[in-house]
Amino acid sequence: MNGQLIIVGLGPGPQNWVTPAASEAVGEADVVLGYAPYVNRLTPRTGQIFEASDNREELARAERALELAASGQRVVVVSGGDPGVFAMAAAVYEAVEKNPVSASSVDIRVEPGVTAMLAAAARIGAPLGHDFCAISLSDNLKSWATIERRLRLAAEADFVIALYNPASKARPEQIKKAFEILATVLPSETIVVFARAVGRADEDVDVTTLGRAADALCDMRTLVMIGSRATRKVQSADGRSWVYTPRSERER
Amino acid sequence: MNGQLIIVGLGPGPQNWVTPAASEAVGEADVVLGYAPYVNRLTPRTGQIFEASDNREELARAERALELAASGQRVVVVSGGDPGVFAMAAAVYEAVEKNPVSASSVDIRVEPGVTAMLAAAARIGAPLGHDFCAISLSDNLKSWATIERRLRLAAEADFVIALYNPASKARPEQIKKAFEILATVLPSETIVVFARAVGRADEDVDVTTLGRAADALCDMRTLVMIGSRATRKVQSADGRSWVYTPRSERER
Repeated sequence: MNGQLIIVGLGPGPQNWVTPAASEAVGEADVVLGYAPYVNRLTPRTGQIFEASDNREELARAERALELAASGQRVVVVSGGDPGVFAMAAAVYEAVEKNPVSASSVDIRVEPGVTAMLAAAARIGAPLGHDFCAISLSDNLKSWATIERRLRLAAEADFVIALYNPASKARPEQIKKAFEILATVLPSETIVVFARAVGRADEDVDVTTLGRAADALCDMRTLVMIGSRATRKVQSADGRSWVYTPRSERER
Repeated sequence: MNGQLIIVGLGPGPQNWVTPAASEAVGEADVVLGYAPYVNRLTPRTGQIFEASDNREELARAERALELAASGQRVVVVSGGDPGVFAMAAAVYEAVEKNPVSASSVDIRVEPGVTAMLAAAARIGAPLGHDFCAISLSDNLKSWATIERRLRLAAEADFVIALYNPASKARPEQIKKAFEILATVLPSETIVVFARAVGRADEDVDVTTLGRAADALCDMRTLVMIGSRATRKVQSADGRSWVYTPRSERER
Protein backbone atom coordinates (compact mmCIF):
# COMPACT_ATOMS: atom_id res chain seq x y z
CA MET A 1 0.00 0.00 0.00
CA ASN A 2 1.18 3.52 -0.79
CA GLY A 3 1.76 5.83 2.11
CA GLN A 4 -0.35 8.88 2.71
CA LEU A 5 0.56 12.26 4.16
CA ILE A 6 -2.24 14.70 4.95
CA ILE A 7 -1.50 18.10 6.42
CA VAL A 8 -4.59 18.99 8.42
CA GLY A 9 -5.90 22.27 9.81
CA LEU A 10 -7.62 21.96 13.20
CA GLY A 11 -8.94 25.52 13.24
CA PRO A 12 -8.40 28.03 16.04
CA GLY A 13 -9.36 25.77 18.93
CA PRO A 14 -12.91 24.58 19.54
CA GLN A 15 -13.99 21.23 18.19
CA ASN A 16 -17.00 22.74 16.41
CA TRP A 17 -14.66 24.74 14.16
CA VAL A 18 -12.87 21.58 12.95
CA THR A 19 -14.18 20.53 9.53
CA PRO A 20 -15.57 16.99 9.20
CA ALA A 21 -12.88 16.35 6.55
CA ALA A 22 -10.15 17.24 9.04
CA SER A 23 -11.67 15.05 11.76
CA GLU A 24 -11.96 12.16 9.33
CA ALA A 25 -8.33 12.46 8.24
CA VAL A 26 -7.16 12.45 11.85
CA GLY A 27 -9.40 9.49 12.68
CA GLU A 28 -7.99 7.37 9.84
CA ALA A 29 -4.31 8.14 10.46
CA ASP A 30 -1.81 5.58 11.72
CA VAL A 31 0.43 8.36 13.03
CA VAL A 32 -0.39 11.97 13.97
CA LEU A 33 2.45 14.48 14.28
CA GLY A 34 2.42 18.11 15.34
CA TYR A 35 3.31 20.85 17.74
CA ALA A 36 2.31 19.61 21.20
CA PRO A 37 -0.58 22.05 21.90
CA TYR A 38 -2.29 21.00 18.66
CA VAL A 39 -1.69 17.25 19.09
CA ASN A 40 -2.95 17.53 22.65
CA ARG A 41 -6.35 18.65 21.42
CA LEU A 42 -6.91 15.19 19.98
CA THR A 43 -7.64 11.80 21.56
CA PRO A 44 -5.81 8.86 19.98
CA ARG A 45 -7.87 5.82 19.11
CA THR A 46 -6.48 2.38 19.90
CA GLY A 47 -3.35 1.60 17.91
CA GLN A 48 -2.83 5.17 16.77
CA ILE A 49 0.54 6.82 17.41
CA PHE A 50 0.76 10.48 18.42
CA GLU A 51 4.09 12.31 18.16
CA ALA A 52 4.17 15.79 19.66
CA SER A 53 7.17 18.04 19.12
CA ASP A 54 8.36 21.58 19.67
CA ASN A 55 7.33 24.67 17.76
CA ARG A 56 10.79 25.34 16.35
CA GLU A 57 11.09 21.90 14.75
CA GLU A 58 8.80 22.35 11.77
CA LEU A 59 11.12 21.12 9.03
CA ALA A 60 12.34 18.17 11.11
CA ARG A 61 8.72 17.22 11.80
CA ALA A 62 7.88 17.49 8.11
CA GLU A 63 10.84 15.27 7.17
CA ARG A 64 9.85 12.72 9.80
CA ALA A 65 6.26 12.74 8.51
CA LEU A 66 7.40 12.22 4.93
CA GLU A 67 9.69 9.37 5.98
CA LEU A 68 6.86 7.61 7.84
CA ALA A 69 4.53 8.06 4.87
CA ALA A 70 7.21 6.76 2.49
CA SER A 71 7.29 3.59 4.59
CA GLY A 72 3.63 3.03 3.78
CA GLN A 73 1.88 4.54 6.77
CA ARG A 74 -1.08 6.89 6.82
CA VAL A 75 0.38 10.01 8.37
CA VAL A 76 -1.34 13.20 9.46
CA VAL A 77 0.49 16.40 10.39
CA VAL A 78 -1.73 18.80 12.33
CA SER A 79 -1.58 22.59 12.43
CA GLY A 80 -3.76 25.01 14.30
CA GLY A 81 -5.94 27.18 12.07
CA ASP A 82 -5.27 26.48 8.40
CA PRO A 83 -2.13 24.44 7.64
CA GLY A 84 -1.34 26.55 4.57
CA VAL A 85 -1.07 29.87 6.44
CA PHE A 86 2.28 30.28 8.21
CA ALA A 87 2.11 26.62 9.17
CA MET A 88 3.05 23.04 8.37
CA ALA A 89 1.97 22.69 4.73
CA ALA A 90 4.88 24.80 3.42
CA ALA A 91 7.28 22.88 5.70
CA VAL A 92 6.11 19.58 4.18
CA TYR A 93 6.68 20.82 0.62
CA GLU A 94 10.12 22.03 1.67
CA ALA A 95 10.78 18.46 2.84
CA VAL A 96 9.52 17.15 -0.53
CA GLU A 97 11.88 19.55 -2.31
CA LYS A 98 14.82 18.35 -0.23
CA ASN A 99 13.97 14.70 -0.81
CA PRO A 100 11.85 14.15 -3.94
CA VAL A 101 12.54 10.42 -3.85
CA SER A 102 10.92 9.96 -0.46
CA ALA A 103 7.80 11.69 -1.79
CA SER A 104 7.47 9.21 -4.64
CA SER A 105 4.20 7.32 -4.54
CA VAL A 106 3.16 9.08 -1.32
CA ASP A 107 -0.33 10.54 -1.56
CA ILE A 108 0.23 14.08 -0.23
CA ARG A 109 -2.60 16.51 0.35
CA VAL A 110 -3.71 19.42 2.50
CA GLU A 111 -6.99 19.68 4.42
CA PRO A 112 -7.83 23.38 4.86
CA GLY A 113 -9.14 24.88 8.07
CA VAL A 114 -10.42 28.11 9.58
CA THR A 115 -7.35 30.31 9.95
CA ALA A 116 -6.95 32.62 12.98
CA MET A 117 -7.75 35.88 11.19
CA LEU A 118 -11.13 34.57 10.02
CA ALA A 119 -12.09 33.55 13.56
CA ALA A 120 -10.81 36.83 15.02
CA ALA A 121 -12.71 38.80 12.38
CA ALA A 122 -15.89 36.83 13.08
CA ARG A 123 -15.68 37.63 16.78
CA ILE A 124 -15.45 41.40 16.31
CA GLY A 125 -17.68 41.91 13.28
CA ALA A 126 -16.42 42.01 9.71
CA PRO A 127 -13.06 43.82 9.57
CA LEU A 128 -11.94 41.71 6.55
CA GLY A 129 -14.91 42.76 4.43
CA HIS A 130 -12.67 44.60 1.96
CA ASP A 131 -9.15 43.96 0.57
CA PHE A 132 -6.67 42.75 3.19
CA CYS A 133 -3.28 41.16 3.77
CA ALA A 134 -1.70 38.76 6.24
CA ILE A 135 1.85 39.28 7.49
CA SER A 136 3.78 37.15 9.96
CA LEU A 137 5.74 39.43 12.25
CA SER A 138 8.24 36.72 13.12
CA ASP A 139 11.74 37.52 11.92
CA ASN A 140 12.97 33.96 12.50
CA LEU A 141 12.40 33.26 8.83
CA LYS A 142 12.74 36.65 7.16
CA SER A 143 14.57 39.89 7.73
CA TRP A 144 13.07 42.70 9.77
CA ALA A 145 13.77 44.99 6.81
CA THR A 146 11.40 42.92 4.67
CA ILE A 147 8.73 43.11 7.36
CA GLU A 148 9.10 46.90 7.62
CA ARG A 149 8.83 47.32 3.87
CA ARG A 150 5.73 45.15 3.66
CA LEU A 151 4.04 46.98 6.53
CA ARG A 152 4.64 50.32 4.84
CA LEU A 153 3.40 49.12 1.43
CA ALA A 154 0.38 47.43 2.99
CA ALA A 155 -0.57 50.67 4.75
CA GLU A 156 -0.07 52.62 1.51
CA ALA A 157 -2.33 50.14 -0.28
CA ASP A 158 -4.94 50.71 2.47
CA PHE A 159 -5.26 46.99 3.12
CA VAL A 160 -6.70 45.80 6.38
CA ILE A 161 -3.64 44.13 7.90
CA ALA A 162 -3.74 40.88 9.88
CA LEU A 163 -0.56 40.30 11.86
CA TYR A 164 0.23 36.70 12.77
CA ASN A 165 2.89 35.94 15.41
CA PRO A 166 2.89 39.55 16.62
CA ALA A 167 5.04 38.91 19.67
CA SER A 168 6.82 36.18 21.59
CA LYS A 169 8.95 36.02 24.71
CA ALA A 170 12.04 36.42 22.53
CA ARG A 171 10.69 39.51 20.74
CA PRO A 172 8.13 41.39 22.84
CA GLU A 173 8.90 44.81 21.34
CA GLN A 174 8.67 44.27 17.57
CA ILE A 175 4.93 44.83 17.51
CA LYS A 176 5.53 48.34 18.85
CA LYS A 177 8.03 48.99 16.07
CA ALA A 178 5.39 47.73 13.62
CA PHE A 179 2.82 50.19 14.99
CA GLU A 180 5.37 53.03 14.67
CA ILE A 181 5.94 52.20 11.01
CA LEU A 182 2.22 51.97 10.30
CA ALA A 183 1.67 55.31 12.06
CA THR A 184 3.94 57.02 9.53
CA VAL A 185 1.30 56.22 6.90
CA LEU A 186 -2.01 55.70 8.69
CA PRO A 187 -3.99 58.14 10.88
CA SER A 188 -3.66 57.67 14.64
CA GLU A 189 -7.40 56.98 14.89
CA THR A 190 -7.06 53.87 12.67
CA ILE A 191 -8.83 50.97 14.38
CA VAL A 192 -6.67 48.19 15.85
CA VAL A 193 -8.09 44.90 17.12
CA PHE A 194 -6.26 42.56 19.50
CA ALA A 195 -7.84 39.12 19.36
CA ARG A 196 -6.30 36.78 21.90
CA ALA A 197 -6.97 33.03 22.10
CA VAL A 198 -10.12 33.24 19.99
CA GLY A 199 -12.39 30.26 20.61
CA ARG A 200 -10.60 29.27 23.82
CA ALA A 201 -11.77 29.68 27.42
CA ASP A 202 -9.48 32.69 27.93
CA GLU A 203 -10.55 34.48 24.73
CA ASP A 204 -10.14 38.24 24.93
CA VAL A 205 -10.85 40.71 22.12
CA ASP A 206 -9.99 44.40 22.51
CA VAL A 207 -10.51 47.30 20.15
CA THR A 208 -8.30 50.36 20.29
CA THR A 209 -6.68 52.81 17.89
CA LEU A 210 -3.27 52.92 16.28
CA GLY A 211 -2.40 55.91 18.48
CA ARG A 212 -2.99 53.83 21.61
CA ALA A 213 -2.05 50.37 20.36
CA ALA A 214 1.47 50.36 21.83
CA ASP A 215 -0.02 50.06 25.33
CA ALA A 216 -1.91 46.86 24.58
CA LEU A 217 -0.55 43.49 25.60
CA CYS A 218 -0.05 40.80 23.04
CA ASP A 219 1.61 37.41 22.83
CA MET A 220 2.00 34.40 20.53
CA ARG A 221 -1.69 33.57 20.82
CA THR A 222 -2.81 37.04 19.72
CA LEU A 223 -3.93 37.99 16.24
CA VAL A 224 -3.63 41.74 15.62
CA MET A 225 -5.72 43.46 12.96
CA ILE A 226 -5.08 47.00 11.79
CA GLY A 227 -7.98 48.55 9.95
CA SER A 228 -7.89 50.33 6.64
CA ARG A 229 -8.95 53.97 6.43
CA ALA A 230 -12.51 52.72 5.87
CA THR A 231 -12.65 50.34 8.85
CA ARG A 232 -14.97 51.66 11.52
CA LYS A 233 -17.10 50.90 14.53
CA VAL A 234 -20.81 50.40 14.28
CA GLN A 235 -23.19 50.49 17.24
CA SER A 236 -26.66 49.17 17.88
CA ALA A 237 -29.07 51.50 19.64
CA ASP A 238 -28.63 49.46 22.84
CA GLY A 239 -24.93 50.23 22.90
CA ARG A 240 -23.21 47.09 21.62
CA SER A 241 -20.51 47.71 19.06
CA TRP A 242 -18.68 45.87 16.30
CA VAL A 243 -15.87 46.64 13.86
CA TYR A 244 -16.35 46.32 10.14
CA THR A 245 -14.90 47.38 6.83
CA PRO A 246 -17.57 48.35 4.28
CA ARG A 247 -17.60 46.31 1.08
CA SER A 248 -17.69 49.50 -0.92
CA GLU A 249 -15.06 52.23 -0.83
CA ARG A 250 -17.75 54.60 -2.07
CA GLU A 251 -19.93 54.24 1.03
CA ARG A 252 -17.36 55.71 3.43
CA MET B 1 -37.46 36.09 23.12
CA ASN B 2 -34.71 38.17 21.53
CA GLY B 3 -34.05 37.63 17.89
CA GLN B 4 -30.84 36.15 16.60
CA LEU B 5 -28.91 36.84 13.42
CA ILE B 6 -25.99 34.57 12.55
CA ILE B 7 -23.96 35.12 9.41
CA VAL B 8 -22.67 31.68 8.49
CA GLY B 9 -19.88 30.52 6.21
CA LEU B 10 -20.63 27.31 4.32
CA GLY B 11 -17.11 26.87 2.94
CA PRO B 12 -16.23 26.38 -0.72
CA GLY B 13 -18.76 23.66 -1.49
CA PRO B 14 -18.49 20.16 -0.10
CA GLN B 15 -20.38 19.26 3.05
CA ASN B 16 -17.25 17.94 4.75
CA TRP B 17 -15.73 21.45 4.66
CA VAL B 18 -18.68 22.94 6.57
CA THR B 19 -17.82 23.37 10.26
CA PRO B 20 -20.09 21.69 12.82
CA ALA B 21 -20.78 25.17 14.27
CA ALA B 22 -22.05 26.37 10.88
CA SER B 23 -24.22 23.27 10.41
CA GLU B 24 -25.66 23.70 13.89
CA ALA B 25 -26.52 27.37 13.30
CA VAL B 26 -28.30 26.49 10.05
CA GLY B 27 -30.14 23.61 11.71
CA GLU B 28 -31.49 25.82 14.51
CA ALA B 29 -32.58 28.75 12.32
CA ASP B 30 -36.20 29.69 11.73
CA VAL B 31 -35.27 31.45 8.49
CA VAL B 32 -32.25 31.00 6.21
CA LEU B 33 -31.44 33.72 3.67
CA GLY B 34 -28.77 33.86 1.02
CA TYR B 35 -27.69 33.92 -2.58
CA ALA B 36 -29.55 31.08 -4.30
CA PRO B 37 -26.56 28.78 -5.06
CA TYR B 38 -25.59 28.79 -1.37
CA VAL B 39 -29.12 28.33 -0.01
CA ASN B 40 -29.64 25.53 -2.51
CA ARG B 41 -26.85 23.51 -0.91
CA LEU B 42 -29.02 23.08 2.18
CA THR B 43 -32.09 21.01 2.94
CA PRO B 44 -34.75 22.79 5.01
CA ARG B 45 -36.13 20.90 7.98
CA THR B 46 -39.87 20.98 8.61
CA GLY B 47 -41.10 24.46 9.46
CA GLN B 48 -37.93 26.17 8.34
CA ILE B 49 -38.18 29.00 5.80
CA PHE B 50 -35.56 29.39 3.07
CA GLU B 51 -35.31 32.68 1.16
CA ALA B 52 -32.98 32.67 -1.80
CA SER B 53 -32.14 35.89 -3.60
CA ASP B 54 -29.86 37.32 -6.26
CA ASN B 55 -26.16 38.03 -5.97
CA ARG B 56 -26.54 41.77 -6.44
CA GLU B 57 -28.96 42.17 -3.55
CA GLU B 58 -26.57 41.87 -0.62
CA LEU B 59 -27.59 44.96 1.32
CA ALA B 60 -31.31 44.36 0.76
CA ARG B 61 -30.86 40.77 1.99
CA ALA B 62 -28.97 42.00 5.06
CA GLU B 63 -31.71 44.51 5.87
CA ARG B 64 -34.38 41.86 5.45
CA ALA B 65 -32.42 39.50 7.74
CA LEU B 66 -32.04 42.18 10.40
CA GLU B 67 -35.76 43.00 10.21
CA LEU B 68 -36.71 39.34 10.65
CA ALA B 69 -34.30 38.98 13.58
CA ALA B 70 -35.67 42.18 15.17
CA SER B 71 -39.10 40.56 15.09
CA GLY B 72 -37.75 37.79 17.32
CA GLN B 73 -36.83 35.10 14.82
CA ARG B 74 -33.66 33.04 14.65
CA VAL B 75 -32.22 34.11 11.32
CA VAL B 76 -29.22 32.74 9.46
CA VAL B 77 -27.64 34.43 6.46
CA VAL B 78 -25.40 32.06 4.51
CA SER B 79 -22.33 32.87 2.45
CA GLY B 80 -20.05 30.57 0.51
CA GLY B 81 -16.54 30.32 1.95
CA ASP B 82 -16.11 32.60 4.94
CA PRO B 83 -18.83 35.22 5.46
CA GLY B 84 -16.29 37.87 6.51
CA VAL B 85 -14.29 37.79 3.26
CA PHE B 86 -15.97 39.79 0.47
CA ALA B 87 -19.30 38.42 1.65
CA MET B 88 -22.41 38.91 3.75
CA ALA B 89 -20.97 39.80 7.17
CA ALA B 90 -19.93 43.31 6.09
CA ALA B 91 -23.33 43.80 4.43
CA VAL B 92 -25.08 42.94 7.70
CA TYR B 93 -23.01 45.47 9.66
CA GLU B 94 -23.80 48.05 6.99
CA ALA B 95 -27.46 47.31 7.66
CA VAL B 96 -26.85 47.71 11.40
CA GLU B 97 -25.17 51.06 10.74
CA LYS B 98 -28.13 52.23 8.67
CA ASN B 99 -30.63 51.11 11.28
CA PRO B 100 -29.11 50.82 14.79
CA VAL B 101 -32.55 50.62 16.37
CA SER B 102 -33.47 47.45 14.50
CA ALA B 103 -30.26 45.83 15.78
CA SER B 104 -31.16 46.51 19.42
CA SER B 105 -31.43 43.35 21.46
CA VAL B 106 -30.70 41.20 18.41
CA ASP B 107 -27.94 38.68 19.09
CA ILE B 108 -25.68 39.16 16.05
CA ARG B 109 -22.69 36.98 15.37
CA VAL B 110 -20.55 35.52 12.60
CA GLU B 111 -19.66 31.85 12.13
CA PRO B 112 -16.38 31.66 10.21
CA GLY B 113 -15.73 29.21 7.39
CA VAL B 114 -13.04 28.00 5.01
CA THR B 115 -12.59 30.83 2.51
CA ALA B 116 -11.89 30.08 -1.17
CA MET B 117 -8.19 30.96 -1.14
CA LEU B 118 -7.49 28.45 1.64
CA ALA B 119 -9.20 25.66 -0.26
CA ALA B 120 -7.51 26.62 -3.52
CA ALA B 121 -4.13 26.76 -1.78
CA ALA B 122 -4.72 23.35 -0.20
CA ARG B 123 -5.45 21.81 -3.59
CA ILE B 124 -2.24 22.96 -5.22
CA GLY B 125 0.21 22.74 -2.31
CA ALA B 126 1.05 25.64 -0.01
CA PRO B 127 1.23 28.88 -2.01
CA LEU B 128 0.07 30.94 1.01
CA GLY B 129 2.94 29.74 3.21
CA HIS B 130 4.42 33.24 3.41
CA ASP B 131 2.92 36.77 3.56
CA PHE B 132 -0.05 37.27 1.25
CA CYS B 133 -2.98 39.51 0.39
CA ALA B 134 -6.51 39.11 -0.89
CA ILE B 135 -7.99 41.55 -3.39
CA SER B 136 -11.44 41.49 -4.93
CA LEU B 137 -11.17 42.41 -8.58
CA SER B 138 -14.78 43.52 -8.79
CA ASP B 139 -15.12 47.21 -9.50
CA ASN B 140 -18.82 47.26 -8.60
CA LEU B 141 -17.87 48.53 -5.16
CA LYS B 142 -14.57 50.34 -5.69
CA SER B 143 -12.83 52.21 -8.45
CA TRP B 144 -10.59 50.46 -10.94
CA ALA B 145 -7.89 53.01 -10.05
CA THR B 146 -7.88 51.71 -6.46
CA ILE B 147 -7.59 48.14 -7.71
CA GLU B 148 -4.65 49.06 -9.97
CA ARG B 149 -2.85 50.84 -7.15
CA ARG B 150 -3.32 47.89 -4.77
CA LEU B 151 -2.12 45.39 -7.36
CA ARG B 152 1.04 47.41 -7.93
CA LEU B 153 1.77 47.87 -4.21
CA ALA B 154 1.05 44.20 -3.49
CA ALA B 155 3.51 43.15 -6.18
CA GLU B 156 6.10 45.59 -4.83
CA ALA B 157 5.60 44.12 -1.35
CA ASP B 158 6.18 40.66 -2.85
CA PHE B 159 2.96 39.32 -1.37
CA VAL B 160 1.39 36.22 -2.78
CA ILE B 161 -1.81 37.69 -4.23
CA ALA B 162 -5.19 35.96 -4.09
CA LEU B 163 -7.70 37.50 -6.49
CA TYR B 164 -11.36 37.00 -5.64
CA ASN B 165 -14.05 37.73 -8.28
CA PRO B 166 -11.44 37.83 -11.05
CA ALA B 167 -13.96 37.94 -13.89
CA SER B 168 -17.65 37.92 -14.64
CA LYS B 169 -19.79 38.08 -17.75
CA ALA B 170 -19.94 41.86 -17.38
CA ARG B 171 -16.17 42.24 -17.07
CA PRO B 172 -14.29 39.38 -18.75
CA GLU B 173 -11.21 41.48 -19.60
CA GLN B 174 -10.21 43.09 -16.27
CA ILE B 175 -8.19 40.10 -15.16
CA LYS B 176 -5.97 40.60 -18.24
CA LYS B 177 -5.46 44.24 -17.27
CA ALA B 178 -4.56 43.05 -13.78
CA PHE B 179 -1.93 40.68 -15.18
CA GLU B 180 -0.50 43.52 -17.28
CA ILE B 181 -0.12 45.71 -14.20
CA LEU B 182 1.48 42.92 -12.20
CA ALA B 183 3.87 42.21 -15.08
CA THR B 184 5.27 45.73 -14.79
CA VAL B 185 6.63 44.71 -11.35
CA LEU B 186 6.92 40.91 -11.31
CA PRO B 187 9.00 38.61 -13.58
CA SER B 188 7.13 36.89 -16.39
CA GLU B 189 8.01 33.49 -14.89
CA THR B 190 6.05 34.30 -11.69
CA ILE B 191 3.75 31.39 -10.94
CA VAL B 192 0.01 31.90 -11.43
CA VAL B 193 -2.62 29.41 -10.25
CA PHE B 194 -6.17 29.28 -11.58
CA ALA B 195 -8.38 27.36 -9.16
CA ARG B 196 -11.86 26.90 -10.51
CA ALA B 197 -14.80 25.48 -8.51
CA VAL B 198 -12.57 23.97 -5.84
CA GLY B 199 -14.35 21.16 -4.01
CA ARG B 200 -17.07 20.82 -6.66
CA ALA B 201 -17.51 18.11 -9.28
CA ASP B 202 -16.13 20.37 -12.03
CA GLU B 203 -13.06 21.44 -10.04
CA ASP B 204 -10.13 22.41 -12.25
CA VAL B 205 -6.78 23.73 -11.06
CA ASP B 206 -4.17 24.98 -13.53
CA VAL B 207 -0.68 26.31 -12.98
CA THR B 208 0.91 28.70 -15.43
CA THR B 209 3.15 31.76 -15.40
CA LEU B 210 2.40 35.45 -15.41
CA GLY B 211 3.77 35.65 -18.95
CA ARG B 212 1.16 33.14 -20.14
CA ALA B 213 -1.69 33.91 -17.73
CA ALA B 214 -3.68 36.09 -20.14
CA ASP B 215 -4.54 33.00 -22.21
CA ALA B 216 -6.18 31.19 -19.30
CA LEU B 217 -9.92 31.14 -18.87
CA CYS B 218 -11.48 32.33 -15.67
CA ASP B 219 -14.92 33.17 -14.38
CA MET B 220 -16.79 34.08 -11.18
CA ARG B 221 -16.06 30.69 -9.66
CA THR B 222 -12.31 30.97 -10.18
CA LEU B 223 -9.80 32.00 -7.53
CA VAL B 224 -6.57 33.29 -9.06
CA MET B 225 -3.33 33.24 -7.11
CA ILE B 226 -0.21 35.07 -8.23
CA GLY B 227 2.95 33.87 -6.54
CA SER B 228 5.59 35.99 -4.87
CA ARG B 229 9.15 35.91 -6.20
CA ALA B 230 9.76 32.97 -3.84
CA THR B 231 6.76 30.87 -4.93
CA ARG B 232 7.88 27.82 -6.87
CA LYS B 233 7.04 24.36 -8.08
CA VAL B 234 8.25 21.28 -6.30
CA GLN B 235 8.25 17.79 -7.81
CA SER B 236 8.36 14.31 -6.40
CA ALA B 237 10.70 11.83 -8.10
CA ASP B 238 7.68 10.17 -9.74
CA GLY B 239 6.76 13.41 -11.49
CA ARG B 240 3.86 14.87 -9.53
CA SER B 241 4.16 18.57 -8.78
CA TRP B 242 2.86 21.14 -6.32
CA VAL B 243 3.22 24.88 -5.82
CA TYR B 244 4.46 26.33 -2.56
CA THR B 245 5.94 29.44 -1.02
CA PRO B 246 8.76 28.68 1.42
CA ARG B 247 8.20 29.89 4.98
CA SER B 248 11.64 31.45 4.96
CA GLU B 249 12.79 34.12 2.54
CA ARG B 250 16.35 32.98 3.26
CA GLU B 251 15.83 29.52 1.79
CA ARG B 252 15.17 30.78 -1.73
